[in-house]
Amino acid sequence: MQILMTKSSYERVQARLAAIVPDLEVVTRAPDGVLERDGQAVSLAGINPDIGWVGVDAAYDGTMNAVSAMMAELPNLRWLQSASAGLDRPEFKTMMAKGARITKGNAQAVPIAEYVVGQAISLILPLAQQAALQRDHEWGRTPYKEISNTRWILVGYGNIGPEIAKRIKPFGVDLTVVRRASTTDDLIDRIIPLADLPEALPQADVVVLACALNDETRNLANAAFFRALKPGAILINIGRGGLLDEDALREALGRNQPAHAVLDVFAVEPLPADSWMWDHPQVRVSAHTSPMGDGNIARADAFFLANLKRYVTGEALLNEADKQEVGL
Amino acid sequence: MQILMTKSSYERVQARLAAIVPDLEVVTRAPDGVLERDGQAVSLAGINPDIGWVGVDAAYDGTMNAVSAMMAELPNLRWLQSASAGLDRPEFKTMMAKGARITKGNAQAVPIAEYVVGQAISLILPLAQQAALQRDHEWGRTPYKEISNTRWILVGYGNIGPEIAKRIKPFGVDLTVVRRASTTDDLIDRIIPLADLPEALPQADVVVLACALNDETRNLANAAFFRALKPGAILINIGRGGLLDEDALREALGRNQPAHAVLDVFAVEPLPADSWMWDHPQVRVSAHTSPMGDGNIARADAFFLANLKRYVTGEALLNEADKQEVGL
Repeated sequence: MQILMTKSSYERVQARLAAIVPDLEVVTRAPDGVLERDGQAVSLAGINPDIGWVGVDAAYDGTMNAVSAMMAELPNLRWLQSASAGLDRPEFKTMMAKGARITKGNAQAVPIAEYVVGQAISLILPLAQQAALQRDHEWGRTPYKEISNTRWILVGYGNIGPEIAKRIKPFGVDLTVVRRASTTDDLIDRIIPLADLPEALPQADVVVLACALNDETRNLANAAFFRALKPGAILINIGRGGLLDEDALREALGRNQPAHAVLDVFAVEPLPADSWMWDHPQVRVSAHTSPMGDGNIARADAFFLANLKRYVTGEALLNEADKQEVGL
Repeated sequence: MQILMTKSSYERVQARLAAIVPDLEVVTRAPDGVLERDGQAVSLAGINPDIGWVGVDAAYDGTMNAVSAMMAELPNLRWLQSASAGLDRPEFKTMMAKGARITKGNAQAVPIAEYVVGQAISLILPLAQQAALQRDHEWGRTPYKEISNTRWILVGYGNIGPEIAKRIKPFGVDLTVVRRASTTDDLIDRIIPLADLPEALPQADVVVLACALNDETRNLANAAFFRALKPGAILINIGRGGLLDEDALREALGRNQPAHAVLDVFAVEPLPADSWMWDHPQVRVSAHTSPMGDGNIARADAFFLANLKRYVTGEALLNEADKQEVGL
C-alpha cells in the first residue's frame, strides 16, 4: 500500500498515520514538485501509489491544482481524498475514469458557512445605517426587519448547506432547501426540487447558491431567476461562478433584484481588474477566500485519517463522490 | 378590575383582551397624555387601575418614560407589565414600594441578541479587509480565525443571555456565563461568579455585558477589567452605560484591550455630540437601538396576554421581578 501526499501534511500526521497502517509506503510532494520516499528523491515514473491525499495545506501554498494534476497521472490510483468539495475540474473525471474512488473534503464547510451567515447578517442588520449616523454624530433610530422574520433559500444541501442551516435556523428563520433527494432534517422547513425554485424565489429574503456546478445548474441564476427575486433580497454565491449569469446580475441590481450580491466565486478567477463588479456599490467581492478559516487543516487531517481507517478495513468511505459529480 | 394601557396597544389587543376578561375596565393613554375610558376623557384622579401595561409601542413613540411615570402615580396598582427588561429607573422602585408586582418585558431580547451576534461576527470575519481589497481591485487572501475557535463570556444571563447563547453556540464557540445562580443549560460550557471574571477575561475573544445595573455591577468594566482583557478582544455593551467606565475604556483601546468596543448604551444618553466615542476608529456607537426589531410588538402583546391570563387565574406570573432588581 503506497500513498502520495503533500510533504507538510506528512509532517503533521506521520505518527497518527503509522498507528493506522504501520507498513504504509509514503511518497511526499514538496511545494516545488519534488517527490521523496524515505528521504530520497524519486521520479513520478518511479512510484506507484494506490492512495492519494490532497491536503488542505495545498490550498494555502497555491499548489492544489498542481497536486491534483499529478494525482491524475498516477496509473493505479484506487482512492483519492480530495481537499475540495466541488469536483468539476477535469482531473477528477480523469482519475475516476481510470477506476479511482474519490472522497470529497468537507473541512471548509465550516468557514464557508460562517462567511454566508456573517455576510447575510451584516446586511440584514442596520450596520451601515448605524455607521452613517455615527459619522454624523447623530443619535438616531435604526428600526429593522429582524433576522427572525427572514426567509432563506439554500440551493444545494451537500456538505455546506447543513452547516449553514445549523447556524441560521436558531435565529428563527424560515428555511427552504433546493435539492434532489428528500431528507429528514429538523433544521429545514421544506425541500423543493430545482424546478420549483421560480415559485419560491419571490418570498425569499436571502438566497444562497451552494450547489455543485453541472449541466443542470450552469447559469441557474439567469435573467428569469433575477426577475423572480423579491426586491431587496440578498444573493450569496459560494458555489461556483458558472452558477450565475454575471451580465444578468448587473441588470438586475439596477432593479434591486437583488439589493445586494455577495460573491466569493466568479466565472473568471482571479476576477479581472477591470470587472464592473469591483466598484458596484451593491456587490461584495471576495477572492474565493470564504474557505480560509484557521480550523481547516486540523479538521481535514482528522477526516482523512478516519477515512484511511475505513479504507484499510473495507468499510464504506465517508463523503464518497458518485460518477455524476465528475461528469461521467 | 381596571387596567391602564397605551391607546395603540388597546387598539391591537381589544378582542383578545375581552376574550380573557370580558368585564375588564380599560383606561387608555394617548401619546399626548390624554386618558380615556369608554371613549370619554378622564383625569388621572378619576381612575383607579389595579393593572398597568407599558406597551412596547411606547418605546417607539418616545413616551415610555412618561407612561411609566404615570403608572408610578397610581395609588392602588397591584401588577405592572413593563416593556423593558431593566428596572433601574426610579419609577419601578416607587411602584414596588407601594406593593405592586412587576413583570419584565422580554420581547426585545430577540433583536438585542441579533445585534450582539451580528456585531461580533461582522468583526470576527475579515469583512473590513475584504472591503479594502475590493476598493483596490485586488484579488487577495483574507485568512482569519474562525468563529468556531472563539471564546465568549456573557456577563449576565437573564432574558437576553439565553437568546445570545442559542444563536452563537451552534457556531461551536466556547461559552462562559457569569451569573449568580447555577443553571443547567446545554448551551453553556461553564458558569462562574462575578468574582471569577478577572481570571476568565484573558482567554475571551468576545465579552458581552448583558447584566442589570446595580451596586455590584456598576463600573464592572473598569481599568482592571480592561487590563485583564486579551489584546484583540471585542467588548459589547447592551446592558447599561453605567456598567462601563468610559475613561478607562478610552485608555484601554490604545492598548488594543479591547480592539473593538461595540456600544449601544452610554453613561449619558443621548451620547453628547462632542463625545470622543463618535470618532474613535475602534468604537461602534449605536443609539440604544439594539432592541428596535420589527417583531417586538407582536411578541410583547402575546406575552402580556399570557401573563394576564395567569393573573386572573392566580397562577405564577412569567418573568416577575424581585425587590433587589428595583433596589429595594
